[in-house]
Amino acid sequence: MSDIMLAPEIEALIERGDREALRLELEGWHDADLAELIAGRPPTEAWSLLSVLPLDRQAEVFGHFEVPVQIDLARVIGRRQLALIVAHMSSDERADLFNRLSPEQQEALLPALAQAEREDIRRLASYGEGTAGAIMTSDYATLTPELSAREALDKLRREAPAKETIYQSYVVDQRRRLLGSVALEDLIMALPGTTVAELMDAEPVFARVDEDQEEVARKVARYDLIAIPVVDGGDMLVGIVTHDDAMDVAEEEVTEDFQKVGAVGRIEGGVREASLTTLYSKRAPWLVLLVFGNLLSGFGIAYYEETIATYLALVFFLPLLIASAGNAGSQAATLMVRALATGDVVLRDWGLFLGRELAVGLALGLTMALAISGIGLWRGGPDIAFVVAVTMVVVVIVGSVIGMSLPFLLSRLNLDPATASAPLVTSIADAAGVVVYFGFATAFLGLPAS
Amino acid sequence: MSDIMLAPEIEALIERGDREALRLELEGWHDADLAELIAGRPPTEAWSLLSVLPLDRQAEVFGHFEVPVQIDLARVIGRRQLALIVAHMSSDERADLFNRLSPEQQEALLPALAQAEREDIRRLASYGEGTAGAIMTSDYATLTPELSAREALDKLRREAPAKETIYQSYVVDQRRRLLGSVALEDLIMALPGTTVAELMDAEPVFARVDEDQEEVARKVARYDLIAIPVVDGGDMLVGIVTHDDAMDVAEEEVTEDFQKVGAVGRIEGGVREASLTTLYSKRAPWLVLLVFGNLLSGFGIAYYEETIATYLALVFFLPLLIASAGNAGSQAATLMVRALATGDVVLRDWGLFLGRELAVGLALGLTMALAISGIGLWRGGPDIAFVVAVTMVVVVIVGSVIGMSLPFLLSRLNLDPATASAPLVTSIADAAGVVVYFGFATAFLGLPAS
Repeated sequence: MSDIMLAPEIEALIERGDREALRLELEGWHDADLAELIAGRPPTEAWSLLSVLPLDRQAEVFGHFEVPVQIDLARVIGRRQLALIVAHMSSDERADLFNRLSPEQQEALLPALAQAEREDIRRLASYGEGTAGAIMTSDYATLTPELSAREALDKLRREAPAKETIYQSYVVDQRRRLLGSVALEDLIMALPGTTVAELMDAEPVFARVDEDQEEVARKVARYDLIAIPVVDGGDMLVGIVTHDDAMDVAEEEVTEDFQKVGAVGRIEGGVREASLTTLYSKRAPWLVLLVFGNLLSGFGIAYYEETIATYLALVFFLPLLIASAGNAGSQAATLMVRALATGDVVLRDWGLFLGRELAVGLALGLTMALAISGIGLWRGGPDIAFVVAVTMVVVVIVGSVIGMSLPFLLSRLNLDPATASAPLVTSIADAAGVVVYFGFATAFLGLPAS
Repeated sequence: MSDIMLAPEIEALIERGDREALRLELEGWHDADLAELIAGRPPTEAWSLLSVLPLDRQAEVFGHFEVPVQIDLARVIGRRQLALIVAHMSSDERADLFNRLSPEQQEALLPALAQAEREDIRRLASYGEGTAGAIMTSDYATLTPELSAREALDKLRREAPAKETIYQSYVVDQRRRLLGSVALEDLIMALPGTTVAELMDAEPVFARVDEDQEEVARKVARYDLIAIPVVDGGDMLVGIVTHDDAMDVAEEEVTEDFQKVGAVGRIEGGVREASLTTLYSKRAPWLVLLVFGNLLSGFGIAYYEETIATYLALVFFLPLLIASAGNAGSQAATLMVRALATGDVVLRDWGLFLGRELAVGLALGLTMALAISGIGLWRGGPDIAFVVAVTMVVVVIVGSVIGMSLPFLLSRLNLDPATASAPLVTSIADAAGVVVYFGFATAFLGLPAS
């Protein structure tokens, strides 16, 4: 396995300008490692490294870069050379890149490409971001049903170099409608005369071109596929999504869910590459928005100011009680956000989980009440201890139910359940906690006649 | 594609007891869909459904069940039939199941299996949970370097039915040391006389048997592998992990990270299957533990009780200020937890991100101070508004830096960075917020001479 720590040796070769030795050294590296080595450098230096490789590897490695890196590099690579690299890239990565180029860069690039590539780019670039169409590749292998296994193998052998995978081929009719899929394994094990029609799975799992990419990745995982075919509205085969691209999509979607759960807007391409302005602009709106939630707690406190002035010891327990409501809510929300994302739980399960959450919340609340009743007695005496314990039971249940329900509610409104971030749930649970706490304290302890 | 909503028709067939019609209907279903249909039913009914299928499909579908479902079913399936199913399961799933059976069930099962299967189970079951060894399968295809492409293909053709994949085969010497790997694609494209030694990648990416499963999944994703070979301490090939199993591991690890970020202990097999007791026991310890964090806030308040009694208006802003510190901290923590999990950020980056966090935190703090200064003036007058605004700037920075640093600190202590849950960060940031707020207020506003 290539080791990225070889870098000092590479540095020496770069300094000596020994391109031949560099080529020999880098040839044994994996594309992903090469991409990492090169991406961290200034564009001109990156290009001088990349250019020692043969063209097909240049295209492979280039395809591994994040799009911003590709765009920086595109500026220093000559137009003709860039066209060569782009022509050798896999069709999905090429379309991705094209979508992010400036109109001027697009105009400069297109004439240097062959007609077929231009059309392929235009077609793939036309699908909405986040859909199957936007992540699929056109480099798939097709067969027709009347071919024999031998003929099919001959065809695949010839076409393999230009295809993303030949381990799964797709059977289409003359109008390119998807009829089935065949595994290479079945083709090589079959008697040479068997037809593709006999060997194919006539009910393959497929995706629609406008299907959410998250759903596509989920199908690939669920059915253990090497690739999934993508069809348009007329059931015509238009592309495939391979297992490795599906895995990348799954990782991207998880990162997005994490950011949402942390109340951060979607940051493309990782925190490392993100500028300070991006980080600020993805965090500030949520923080400011949550101020209004927290003000509710403030107004709750203002409303009960007289109670607080009378029983100042109550303030000691305030952070504890509202934080416990928020924490229980965060727990419930994160569990539901993830379960809804994996499909373990669906919308109609809300009733079932409400019942369970009430039961678990009650048990948790009682535990917490027990845990703090000693401190309640010590700091506030029996009356305040009682108020604190009862409040604890109620706010843990309320927080849990809010946290559990919010992801369902968001999902019901066709919003992403992950928007039920820990901070959002905490803010809501805090406000509920303030009202329950001081409301119950006022009722139970009473106010001195004024 | 099979549609799980066909269930009513299936119900009718089950009620009529029409096993032949059932078999025909279920034959076209995908394993994953069948597993979902069957797993939700009581064990006897589940077994009567499963038993209409041919043995190899029984084993496939059985392998798709979560282990608790397998164990429930194992109780109603006769010992001999269970042994047949287990013998047909893929070797990794078989070892998983065996690991969870009671000693009595293990004793009952082993004698019914063939010698080779017994040894395979014992060997695979001996690896620690969460390692490459625990998730690998023994059903991989091997070749030797001197074979010609034609001979290699003949061997793979014969062995394919018993292997998890033949798309990647592994080249070993007489002592079974890993020499390289060969793609089926390259074998079928090569001239028949080319040797395996000429075709193989002599530096394949591999995993060690005791390597963390998360790392294994990461390698499969990074290098776009169909499968990764696993070697023991003597570089001997002992198994492979296929891309679909790697994808399952990645999903499992993400779910665990989500649960940790939500301050919930690891729940196996999803919230749906989890019992109320499990849910309680995974949540209560964290909630109780966090009480102590929140008590710090309480003691902070107690320390400044005189200030609070003098300037009661300060309490109005308390939830807002400590929540803002907690929210900024949650944002920073979730970003870092995920970045550390994907490898986007590594331990030595702390210094870099500290600088960035200070800058972003300052900008966020100023924004927040601006956002609430109007309310500060309205509710508390210029002096309190000033105290609140300055506090806001400071606590947002402090919260951000705590949230950003905690995942690094945990990682440095060889703990999972995801333990830096939103509730934990919030608790710490809350306490810091209380001290900053009332400390500054006391210093700036002063106390009446008493």
